[in-house]
Amino acid sequence: MQKGKSSIEFKHPPRIIGKASVVGKKEGEGPLGNLFDQVEQDPMFGTASWEEAESQLQKRAAEAAIQNAGLTPADMRYMLAGDLLGQLIATSFGVMELEIPLFGLYGACSTMGESMTLGSILVDGGYADRVLSLASSHFASAEKQFRFPLEYGNQRPLSASWTVTGCGAVVLSKNGDGPRITGVTTGKIVDMGLKDSMNMGACMAPAAADTICQHFQDFGRMPDDYDRIITGDLGIVGKQILEEFLDGKGIDIRRQHMDCGIEIFSASTQDTHAGGSGCGCSASVLCAYVLPQMMKGEWKRVLFVPTGALLSTVSFNEGQSVPGIAHAVVIEA
Amino acid sequence: MQKGKSSIEFKHPPRIIGKASVVGKKEGEGPLGNLFDQVEQDPMFGTASWEEAESQLQKRAAEAAIQNAGLTPADMRYMLAGDLLGQLIATSFGVMELEIPLFGLYGACSTMGESMTLGSILVDGGYADRVLSLASSHFASAEKQFRFPLEYGNQRPLSASWTVTGCGAVVLSKNGDGPRITGVTTGKIVDMGLKDSMNMGACMAPAAADTICQHFQDFGRMPDDYDRIITGDLGIVGKQILEEFLDGKGIDIRRQHMDCGIEIFSASTQDTHAGGSGCGCSASVLCAYVLPQMMKGEWKRVLFVPTGALLSTVSFNEGQSVPGIAHAVVIEA
Repeated sequence: MQKGKSSIEFKHPPRIIGKASVVGKKEGEGPLGNLFDQVEQDPMFGTASWEEAESQLQKRAAEAAIQNAGLTPADMRYMLAGDLLGQLIATSFGVMELEIPLFGLYGACSTMGESMTLGSILVDGGYADRVLSLASSHFASAEKQFRFPLEYGNQRPLSASWTVTGCGAVVLSKNGDGPRITGVTTGKIVDMGLKDSMNMGACMAPAAADTICQHFQDFGRMPDDYDRIITGDLGIVGKQILEEFLDGKGIDIRRQHMDCGIEIFSASTQDTHAGGSGCGCSASVLCAYVLPQMMKGEWKRVLFVPTGALLSTVSFNEGQSVPGIAHAVVIEA
Repeated sequence: MQKGKSSIEFKHPPRIIGKASVVGKKEGEGPLGNLFDQVEQDPMFGTASWEEAESQLQKRAAEAAIQNAGLTPADMRYMLAGDLLGQLIATSFGVMELEIPLFGLYGACSTMGESMTLGSILVDGGYADRVLSLASSHFASAEKQFRFPLEYGNQRPLSASWTVTGCGAVVLSKNGDGPRITGVTTGKIVDMGLKDSMNMGACMAPAAADTICQHFQDFGRMPDDYDRIITGDLGIVGKQILEEFLDGKGIDIRRQHMDCGIEIFSASTQDTHAGGSGCGCSASVLCAYVLPQMMKGEWKRVLFVPTGALLSTVSFNEGQSVPGIAHAVVIEA
């Protein structure tokens, strides 16, 4: 059901009946380390390239989520998936063997929000009984895609984030038990003209603010209606900008706000500067930490807002700005 | 409504109430040249880079389609868009100013099928009254992304296709007049192990065959139920492979089959070898030729099947195969 300008309230809220998170060694050493379903010590995941490693990450998370739901790939009517690499090659080669009809998505690091939004629409609308939504990133494939060769050992400014090696996957279902997705607010591209690809938190914060404001307006809610408002990967720089942006609109989310990029690494011991980032950051934290908190009854209602920075090396080198986008998903216990 | 294994039949078929095609000079010189809404003689579209040129192409097509429907951007609840470039930068910088909530999609050259599928679901399900679906490609931005610098002047094998500079955009609506989208069949990734990126028709044909077969099975239909079965950009090599593949399944589509990549360029005078390709090929031919044929009553029901080859320069250089995917959309007058 349409709700306000950019939102949907689901009549038949899809249930999250299965979930899985698979991450790399560094994520396993972080504060959430013991919560992930699988921590792989080999950054290559037993393959010959970083891209294949990321594909393995997707494949394992997809299979584990389906298994967690007590189902098989044939039970999934659709799969909605994406990653950060050009032409989504981690996805193409990761989930091919599952032989599930695929909607390939790109929303930069907001992809898990996009994937859960469209997946929920498919289930709520009766177009599918069960779908699989997932998103991944890999530190090394992303560095190769977006930044410098690892061997180059370039210095990173303190505003830079560290791409998470991780994948989170959820099975959304018409029936069954598990947290419900009760609504979504879909973001538009927001460009404040920022051009610093080493400060993506600042580039994405305005988009997060825009989507969160729109969400409150569309649903007639306030921050206190949520136990947590969980952004994707703004990091410490972006978190502050988001909160100050919202101050300007008379909205204070500090009591509820949590950022997956800040949670996943230890600022004091892991040298990841602004925090974690990548599609896999919010997706894996959702599955390892957020959903279990809801299933334990700790949180009743959260707003999950993955955030994406829309750039490529080409757009950056051609002097373009780094616009942001954010998609919000309401999850209730 | 779910139909068979991978299809949906719409209860409230969305109407295509607006459409527009914008193409480049070469496309304007082809057999369909006088059917496109806009033919731009400047390959740079007045910008400073190929990528910005492609963004302009999207912006112009989006605005023209919305205008063709007699509406404004604010009337569109969602936009579903994609292109071929890494991280969808043509889309990000092309449609940003429209300020419409965006679902970014990547299905290689099948993107227009994916975009119309998800757009139709949003409208049929009551999640939006009107959405904008579009996809673009640009010859020069694609050559830069996938192949060789143009100045290099490399030889192209006869199986290679020529990326169309074009964008097609449609406005899907709950109400109004225009062809109806009555059903969809969503494809899965099909990999026959082919590795020749200069023969994408061969790489995509098995996926087209898979989706078309699945479509006939899900809907209980045969080729004769369609006036045209319109693949995206198989070209002359892929067309033959598709038809032979389907022969093996006892299905003969030769009387109905048409390929947008073959239609858009003249094989005898335009030196485009196997034909046109790119997201913009099927999208622009749909808007310039297919939909008008339906609106004139020439064709009553067509199956529109954009086809995509899932590769990047990274996956290709790492020795991966080129899998395909195809999404089918049923359009009725």
